[in-house]
Amino acid sequence: MRILGLDPGSHVCGYGVIETGEPRISAPGGNQLTYVECGVLTAPADLAMEERLAEIARGLRDVLAELAPMVVAVEDVFTHSNVRSGLALAQARGMVLAVVGLSGLRAASYAPALIKKTVTGSGRADKDQIARMVQHLVGLRALPRPDASDALAVAITHAHHRQSTALRLRVVEV
Amino acid sequence: MRILGLDPGSHVCGYGVIETGEPRISAPGGNQLTYVECGVLTAPADLAMEERLAEIARGLRDVLAELAPMVVAVEDVFTHSNVRSGLALAQARGMVLAVVGLSGLRAASYAPALIKKTVTGSGRADKDQIARMVQHLVGLRALPRPDASDALAVAITHAHHRQSTALRLRVVEV
Repeated sequence: MRILGLDPGSHVCGYGVIETGEPRISAPGGNQLTYVECGVLTAPADLAMEERLAEIARGLRDVLAELAPMVVAVEDVFTHSNVRSGLALAQARGMVLAVVGLSGLRAASYAPALIKKTVTGSGRADKDQIARMVQHLVGLRALPRPDASDALAVAITHAHHRQSTALRLRVVEV
Repeated sequence: MRILGLDPGSHVCGYGVIETGEPRISAPGGNQLTYVECGVLTAPADLAMEERLAEIARGLRDVLAELAPMVVAVEDVFTHSNVRSGLALAQARGMVLAVVGLSGLRAASYAPALIKKTVTGSGRADKDQIARMVQHLVGLRALPRPDASDALAVAITHAHHRQSTALRLRVVEV
């Protein structure tokens, strides 16, 4: 299964794509992760918010078309210490979810602490620890840049939790 | 000038379109407002967030294509007493801004208190007072439903403040 992880932002949106084999219920930790691609979608800082969001939306549409993920995983917005930053992040997340929905894909959401805990074992890991563990888990030669490694971390989190997520989705859809 | 006002939400997005003559600088209060259309874009409550945002985005694209506004005015998200409601509103606002930006239009933002003050004279007016003043200002026979009248109120606010907004935009664009 090809998973696209996204770390939304109104200036920079990180993306990371991995592939995982079918999970074996007898060996839940035994998923093989294969790295496909990661990078960042950016918009010039001097553009108005609607132009920045449109620019990143266009980039995300290209990523969805070219890399053809089966599912998308997105970092959830938490209660930000800076209210305006939190609202700007939520706006970027709304744009990302709309683009994913318009492409007919489903989005799974994961809290930042769960992503950190899944990837590093600690819910309070810093950006550098996440990047190093991501590099190790998907076998990258170089350290990915922070927004891209955060996006890969979301994708890895989905790979580890998707069985329970799939069950939840199925229950909701019945 | 044809103005589309939007009151974004992740379940219901109100829209309202008005037309205004060219402002006369000698008579700033003398703008003639003409009602064009108002309504609501909705998404079923049992859909996932990305499906709801996509459904409302599709409706908004149709509104932009059919009603061809020259500019869009959107209510700003304020610091909500309920953090989750505030983040959900911000997500809906991000979707709306991205759709507006993708269509090549600009979005002007107005704080809820300024909208209330512009339309009713009081920054603390309730929904019913806003709806009645909107009905009076654009000459509607029936009271519009709350989300639609809020959207018309944003459009009316832009009609009243667009000279200063246009100046600000010009300064930014130089």
